[in-house]
Amino acid sequence: MSGFPDPVRGPLAPTAGVLRPLGVHDVTISGGPFARWQEINRSASIPLGLEQMEASGALPNLRLAAGEGDGDFRGYRFQDSDLYKQLEAVAWEHLRAPDAGYPEFVAASAALLARAQRPDGYLNSHYQVVKPGKIFAELEYSHEMYCAGHLFQAAVAASRAGCGDDLLAVARRFADLLVERFLTGGDDGIDGHAEVETALVELYRHTGVSAYLELARKLVDNRGKGLIADSGMGPLYSQDHLPVREAGTAAGHAVRQLYLEAAVVDLYLETGDESLLECSVRRWEDMVATKTYLTGGLGARHDGESFGERYELPSDRAYSESCAAIASVHWNWRLLLATGHGRYADLIERTLHNAFAASTSADGVRFFYVNPLQRRADLFEDRYLGRRREWFACACCPPNIMRLVASLGHYVATTDDEGLSVHQYVPGEIRAGAVTLEVETRYPWDGRVRFTVRETPGGPWTLKLRIPAWSEGGLVPDADGYARVRRDWKPGDVLDLDLDLTPRLVVPHRRIDALRGCAAVERGPLVYCFEQIDQEADLEDLALAAEPRLRAVERDVPGLGPTVVIEADAVRLPPAPADGLPYFPSTSTAAAESAPTPVTATAVPYYQWDNRDGGVMRVWTPHL
Amino acid sequence: MSGFPDPVRGPLAPTAGVLRPLGVHDVTISGGPFARWQEINRSASIPLGLEQMEASGALPNLRLAAGEGDGDFRGYRFQDSDLYKQLEAVAWEHLRAPDAGYPEFVAASAALLARAQRPDGYLNSHYQVVKPGKIFAELEYSHEMYCAGHLFQAAVAASRAGCGDDLLAVARRFADLLVERFLTGGDDGIDGHAEVETALVELYRHTGVSAYLELARKLVDNRGKGLIADSGMGPLYSQDHLPVREAGTAAGHAVRQLYLEAAVVDLYLETGDESLLECSVRRWEDMVATKTYLTGGLGARHDGESFGERYELPSDRAYSESCAAIASVHWNWRLLLATGHGRYADLIERTLHNAFAASTSADGVRFFYVNPLQRRADLFEDRYLGRRREWFACACCPPNIMRLVASLGHYVATTDDEGLSVHQYVPGEIRAGAVTLEVETRYPWDGRVRFTVRETPGGPWTLKLRIPAWSEGGLVPDADGYARVRRDWKPGDVLDLDLDLTPRLVVPHRRIDALRGCAAVERGPLVYCFEQIDQEADLEDLALAAEPRLRAVERDVPGLGPTVVIEADAVRLPPAPADGLPYFPSTSTAAAESAPTPVTATAVPYYQWDNRDGGVMRVWTPHL
Repeated sequence: MSGFPDPVRGPLAPTAGVLRPLGVHDVTISGGPFARWQEINRSASIPLGLEQMEASGALPNLRLAAGEGDGDFRGYRFQDSDLYKQLEAVAWEHLRAPDAGYPEFVAASAALLARAQRPDGYLNSHYQVVKPGKIFAELEYSHEMYCAGHLFQAAVAASRAGCGDDLLAVARRFADLLVERFLTGGDDGIDGHAEVETALVELYRHTGVSAYLELARKLVDNRGKGLIADSGMGPLYSQDHLPVREAGTAAGHAVRQLYLEAAVVDLYLETGDESLLECSVRRWEDMVATKTYLTGGLGARHDGESFGERYELPSDRAYSESCAAIASVHWNWRLLLATGHGRYADLIERTLHNAFAASTSADGVRFFYVNPLQRRADLFEDRYLGRRREWFACACCPPNIMRLVASLGHYVATTDDEGLSVHQYVPGEIRAGAVTLEVETRYPWDGRVRFTVRETPGGPWTLKLRIPAWSEGGLVPDADGYARVRRDWKPGDVLDLDLDLTPRLVVPHRRIDALRGCAAVERGPLVYCFEQIDQEADLEDLALAAEPRLRAVERDVPGLGPTVVIEADAVRLPPAPADGLPYFPSTSTAAAESAPTPVTATAVPYYQWDNRDGGVMRVWTPHL
Repeated sequence: MSGFPDPVRGPLAPTAGVLRPLGVHDVTISGGPFARWQEINRSASIPLGLEQMEASGALPNLRLAAGEGDGDFRGYRFQDSDLYKQLEAVAWEHLRAPDAGYPEFVAASAALLARAQRPDGYLNSHYQVVKPGKIFAELEYSHEMYCAGHLFQAAVAASRAGCGDDLLAVARRFADLLVERFLTGGDDGIDGHAEVETALVELYRHTGVSAYLELARKLVDNRGKGLIADSGMGPLYSQDHLPVREAGTAAGHAVRQLYLEAAVVDLYLETGDESLLECSVRRWEDMVATKTYLTGGLGARHDGESFGERYELPSDRAYSESCAAIASVHWNWRLLLATGHGRYADLIERTLHNAFAASTSADGVRFFYVNPLQRRADLFEDRYLGRRREWFACACCPPNIMRLVASLGHYVATTDDEGLSVHQYVPGEIRAGAVTLEVETRYPWDGRVRFTVRETPGGPWTLKLRIPAWSEGGLVPDADGYARVRRDWKPGDVLDLDLDLTPRLVVPHRRIDALRGCAAVERGPLVYCFEQIDQEADLEDLALAAEPRLRAVERDVPGLGPTVVIEADAVRLPPAPADGLPYFPSTSTAAAESAPTPVTATAVPYYQWDNRDGGVMRVWTPHL
């Protein structure tokens, strides 16, 4: 199929790949979860974020760097990155639904950044204000290139979204300095936190300056050679333990690993170096099989914000950072474009609807940094009692969430020589060159997705529809996970896809010690959870029946709004002893004094949790 | 019974309490685990520790403070405390088995400390050398009083053990400064790390200076009033969240909590303030029921080295710091003396034989800082691959282990008005005033303990023998856990105690999510574990049979020496899938393609683990 838009006006515009993305504005999302997220992003989250750019010190710090403000530097050394992600968010939001205020904020910020930027192109308010003598001298933890990367992504977004090229000019000056110093200048420094690499590739795509691509390649190729000094967290923390082509498992700081993977696939897409795709796919397969939460969340440990070991997937202490979910979408999207395989779109769907969606409150003004799959009854060690919060000292997550939500249109569909592929099912309109496709669905509440061709060029083309791995029956997918319908489409042609939303009871791999003896409930792309407030019994005394009936019920739940709950057969277990050591002879009968009482347990979608009270929550529940 | 030794020449010499301790030298330990630990402590661990006092910077730092050395301060701000614990260890070791070298080391160290000490009594090499302007200005993390506490304990030990009073003079000068500033001087500062409180009480006991007791009381009473600045870890980390009489659960940094509890009970013992005993017992009961590992280990989280929430007891990521096991023994010993209840001696036994004993390698020159109950197959995130190490940058544990091992004689038996109580069963001789009791046993390999009265005064007295909660049959204990035999004992009288060492299969409380579906094996006081090297099958594929026969077999195991292994009926499970997400429909039959194969699983005592290779280890094993 010809005539798809070029250049792509979205976060990723690769010059090669099996699939080609659409722009943020090529997909109109008119309902369902994505539309709801975009509404609250615009009405609540972005306004909060813009306020925080002042309150948190991000803009004041840059004024200090520009010699314009009073006071002290505030926040972390990577405080600038909050502003860059916020700028990217408003740029995509402007492209999605124009608003005069956003380009104004971009322009004002770009002007401030230009004033703060040193003549040589360097720009980092922390190092300019607090540690000018340490510029590029402590890259293992400085986040200078990390911040630069977010600047580059914001600049590309602003340029593609029609918010002007002033930010791009600032970005290019800094990028040219990085090239001068770290590519042609012979300095082998590497930022401890990957991010600039994928950003440099995108800046190359947008500007055509091949030195940016070369610098990204050098930074990726040099990782794992011990060139990053020890920040005190060891080489794994920064993925400097092994060269990327040799590392067999995703490890260390999860967000760093995932941003690095995005760059690895970006470099494959631009250079055709198969060894890069191979190593990234190898780690993806290992990560999915051994280090991924049911919600798509990644990162098992608070300690070092790290992946943890294979099959180490505790529910209560899951880290599953919101930024890791976002970075996972980035990586999977690149793998999808590179390979055309639906398993990556499956994981994007799982991640978006669960680990990612849960990160934001229903009203859009509170966020989770970590996204556990269990909240205990006795929260004592957590200063915030496991609740979402309005903002964070380290506020990497909220603006990251905003930039992804604003750009969701980019991740819905792609084109290729065969035709049009739909990866995520949302109601609205997909415009790909001469094709306009209307999508009607109540997904994920209902499994019917109706496609109506509104405009089409002459001649046959293929509509490829992702069949999620969990769906049985209906259209039959090929090995790549897509069902293909090839026709000489005419305007008004209709195709119905029926996905199987029968609730599913899922059980864990037996090597996941944290989940042994438990089961979880899913329906379509949604992982469910049990919150105490919906139960007839103490959730800590509840177990799912051996073969529970699972009943999906549409309901308007106070505090949650319209949803589909799942009622499951369960039992209330007899009280457990509370005295002495919690270990008993296996022959003990203490716990079996009374028989379990049948009860109904009620589950709600995981993404909706923590919108009512701060009670106990479980995704994985004991299972008889 | 009259005529027990006074003053007690051991770590604790309370002036009140239900039971009265003996001195370190009043019990000769001639065999069994305690004797083995003491042998390697003397031949290997203490020599290593003494070397490290130079190598780690502890002594060189003090020379800097004395104006005698060159170079920079090395290590942490609490580096002095390593020397103090090492001094305490050699003092008790000298009392246990005199050696000319130890008093010499104590004297030389005391002289150096006296030279380093400021005229006003202040002594801390880090603050004197590195941050003289910050003395007592950052108590939330300075560890200045923490180090002082270890100095006081070392000084009391040296004095009681016959290693001279020079160290005591240094200690008293510092203690007097603390009194002047923090008691009479009106400064309400409190060290973020509890330790000085229990040490001050002991210094009071040894010197009779009541101001030391008063300062300890003030420091304990003032905790939980927000007087400790935030070190960045929050008030819970330093137990400053609630006054000790109000806090209902052991929480925050485990070692800090446990040292604080020792002081709380010490203050009860010296003041009779029942509210102190009550609150400490309340937290003990909660901790034992909800936050204690099967090994007696304490502290579930690496993050903040904290207790974690109730029932949060992961095996793989257990922190169970060696120092927490030691601090638990200190606290339980004080509760035992205060109440006479055997449950505290039971927990001491469990802790010593398991969490504590595992901390040291069979050859005494490698140590665990953390003592997990599981080592995974794929260790990637741990720089040390979960193995014991010779020393640590933060070396709090090794000298702490040495001081407890050297003083174990103190914890074996007590006297009271009824007679003599035996709390821990070790072969050798107990001398309590006019009574000499010989103990013969191969415990814990064999359950028979033979007591022979060798010397006795005229008239009846009671021999109280602790009956561990796990032992069935034989002598029947009273409600306090002790069997009482009251006789007009004559020299040559023999009493046999038979403890039931039938291997036990134990199952966890159902609220411990990390252990659901697993069982563990115990025999007598020993927790067992399965190490890969002893198995016929991959340990990750192994499950214990539903009702396994457990066979105890005496065996000389290469690398471990003589031991008792336990053979258990088990099965080898069919291979588990390794592709795709590790979650399956409950109806899936993928995992049930072949039937489990019966195998024999072989367990060794947990304390012996990691003495051969670095393979997989499990205390808790899946259970059909």
